[in-house]
Amino acid sequence: MKIYRYPNKNIWADLVQRPVLERAEISGLVAEIFEEVERNGDSALLAFNRKFDQAETDGVIVLESEIEEAEKLVSSELKKAIQQAKDNIFQFHESQKQKVQKIETTKGVICWRENRAVEKVGIYIPGGTAPLFSTVLMLAIPANLAGCKEVILCTPPDKNGNVNPAILYTAKLCGISKVFKTGGAQAVVAMTLGTESIPKVYKIFGPGNQFVVAAKEYAQRYGVAIDMPAGPSEVLVIADEQAVPDFCAADLLSQAEHGSDSQVIFVATDLKVFNETMSAIDQQIKKLPRNEMAGKALENSCFILVNSLEEALEFSNLYAPEHLILAMKDFKKYIPMVQNAGSVFLGNYSCESAGDYASGTNHTLPTNAYARNYSGVSLDSFVKKITFQHLSEEGLQNLGKTIELMAEAEGLFAHKNAVSIRLKR
Amino acid sequence: MKIYRYPNKNIWADLVQRPVLERAEISGLVAEIFEEVERNGDSALLAFNRKFDQAETDGVIVLESEIEEAEKLVSSELKKAIQQAKDNIFQFHESQKQKVQKIETTKGVICWRENRAVEKVGIYIPGGTAPLFSTVLMLAIPANLAGCKEVILCTPPDKNGNVNPAILYTAKLCGISKVFKTGGAQAVVAMTLGTESIPKVYKIFGPGNQFVVAAKEYAQRYGVAIDMPAGPSEVLVIADEQAVPDFCAADLLSQAEHGSDSQVIFVATDLKVFNETMSAIDQQIKKLPRNEMAGKALENSCFILVNSLEEALEFSNLYAPEHLILAMKDFKKYIPMVQNAGSVFLGNYSCESAGDYASGTNHTLPTNAYARNYSGVSLDSFVKKITFQHLSEEGLQNLGKTIELMAEAEGLFAHKNAVSIRLKR
Repeated sequence: MKIYRYPNKNIWADLVQRPVLERAEISGLVAEIFEEVERNGDSALLAFNRKFDQAETDGVIVLESEIEEAEKLVSSELKKAIQQAKDNIFQFHESQKQKVQKIETTKGVICWRENRAVEKVGIYIPGGTAPLFSTVLMLAIPANLAGCKEVILCTPPDKNGNVNPAILYTAKLCGISKVFKTGGAQAVVAMTLGTESIPKVYKIFGPGNQFVVAAKEYAQRYGVAIDMPAGPSEVLVIADEQAVPDFCAADLLSQAEHGSDSQVIFVATDLKVFNETMSAIDQQIKKLPRNEMAGKALENSCFILVNSLEEALEFSNLYAPEHLILAMKDFKKYIPMVQNAGSVFLGNYSCESAGDYASGTNHTLPTNAYARNYSGVSLDSFVKKITFQHLSEEGLQNLGKTIELMAEAEGLFAHKNAVSIRLKR
Repeated sequence: MKIYRYPNKNIWADLVQRPVLERAEISGLVAEIFEEVERNGDSALLAFNRKFDQAETDGVIVLESEIEEAEKLVSSELKKAIQQAKDNIFQFHESQKQKVQKIETTKGVICWRENRAVEKVGIYIPGGTAPLFSTVLMLAIPANLAGCKEVILCTPPDKNGNVNPAILYTAKLCGISKVFKTGGAQAVVAMTLGTESIPKVYKIFGPGNQFVVAAKEYAQRYGVAIDMPAGPSEVLVIADEQAVPDFCAADLLSQAEHGSDSQVIFVATDLKVFNETMSAIDQQIKKLPRNEMAGKALENSCFILVNSLEEALEFSNLYAPEHLILAMKDFKKYIPMVQNAGSVFLGNYSCESAGDYASGTNHTLPTNAYARNYSGVSLDSFVKKITFQHLSEEGLQNLGKTIELMAEAEGLFAHKNAVSIRLKR
């Protein structure tokens, strides 16, 4: 833990720095994977399954029988939980639908926007230490709400060549029929270029390790869009004197257990809460199965004591956290001050894990200070907004002179002529 | 002109191909410009003004006196035109504001989204053959509506070291106070890294040549966001037997005059309209000052005769044009079939230049088939949507079990504990 008591603002810029990743080496490996998948398609993917996931797989397509089998392996208790989460996520994302609103900007000139789904989308779900079936919910539900025609999912096989049952169950529940056994950068490449089995898509969503992140970045050179750039997961907790140290500690640890590169920041105004939260972490971490990982993340964590909640918010906006917890009494007063954050959790009972799983908000959020210039995933991420305009004869008469003058001033006479030739009729 | 009469669908994929740009060479040059500006700041920019724009400039900051002088050089007639365009663009983008809508997904669990402006944005306006003051309107108006705190503008100087007066006038009219004399890739670099005079920004908007496009792509490695990837400008016109050949020709030419790499596609169902539009182009092009450029663009243009409007729409969706003109009587019937397009112009009087300047819609649109997975610029482009959630004690009780079960199934016990420790209270 790095502890800062009332740090001077001139060192804040250092405190908000994220770890720098070694880009060059990774992107070389990713470029090789692109070449290999482009050349050998499915058989390259099977070879990567062997090499990176130690899995022997006959093919990349998950069979209907495997999905049926998976359904039996998920407990009815967990199924009920997934259903409640699904209902909440559905409700919140459905509320993001917008009605078409036609605006008459000048008499006879009507403009509006209509949403159209991105037709083909690909979802990547990591395997590894945590089988993130919750991310299936977060991406498949808005994809379906948007009306995406083709939604495919790639995820790595385990050592036995199987996909985690909860992932398969959730995918089916959300209407995804095409699931493929391929992970890491190669999954991203497959969805970008297409293979014999895997269709190419227009937009790729989902989290992953630094190879997946690099592959998504690289994929954009092929015309594919991605949900957002990414880095390690983060939480910043702001606590006042009413915050409960045990709760703060639990929230900080739930971020820390994500991985040794997780970013954990605690900003408090009250010395007692500050100290007790640190003690509570020492107590709670002992009982965690992933305590080694969490411990490593905590080594780089920052615990910062500040003079006021205003100062805390100012620091948070500079840091631009993925998750921001306002563990304070007067959170309502401070909401308008939140400028840069992915998702915000208000008060003592809104733990981050509520939003990670089931409150209804999306957990695919901007990290690495991208909360300054990116939104998290929402229904918007799965649609394009197309503008339409209709000018009647009267509309063009009312606007024609303006268009002609502006086109001429820009030296674009064919633009002008497109109006003049119509006005002459 | 490339003419295709009733082409078989199996060659459509070839017809929708865009020209391939030489990426490697350009990105090497852009990387050098990044290094140079990083090392020498403003003085690098002044050297580039000399090298690329043949302009001697003392500094990059446009002075207040230059802006006042520019105001005198713009005719009152043009000022009136710019004002009408501004009013329409303002109205349409203001209508894109959304009310906050709170959703109770489970009793005691309230979720919503709030917009926050991207705090610092940079606008790039090309100089060169067309001084695009209209693009100032398209970018500065939504930036202001969104509430962006710092909006800066970079544009190249002319050979006398001055900036086009209409650009300066429009910038001031739209409340931009910081304008800088620097163009091309180096302007993008300056806004990405910052120099002594130019502040660094979080998001960069605006069109440009292939060096600007490459620099914007490269800038993303530094954490900057961009409006969208880009390619040459495009129009696809679909005409039925009611279309007016003279109007179609004028619209196709107004796209062609943008540059020799402009993409011009004409799809018609009626042989007479098809042939007469080609003749009208031959007539109209002679009178255009930029006829050489337009002629080159037309060499690569496609004129396609198809069997039905349904087939025309199907082709258009595969092509995914930046601008789509539905020069047909029954355009209402075909709107729902438009799947991939940037902006759509309906009927015989909605010429593309109306949307380029003054109807109210934005003219910064996805090209190069990116209409499949990107929207054009709108108010949304200048904000992040932050999710908020509040769980009351009751809310957490209603949702707690679900979160615990899901966290446990993902092997994330600290996530589970953040709930359990609260439920125990």
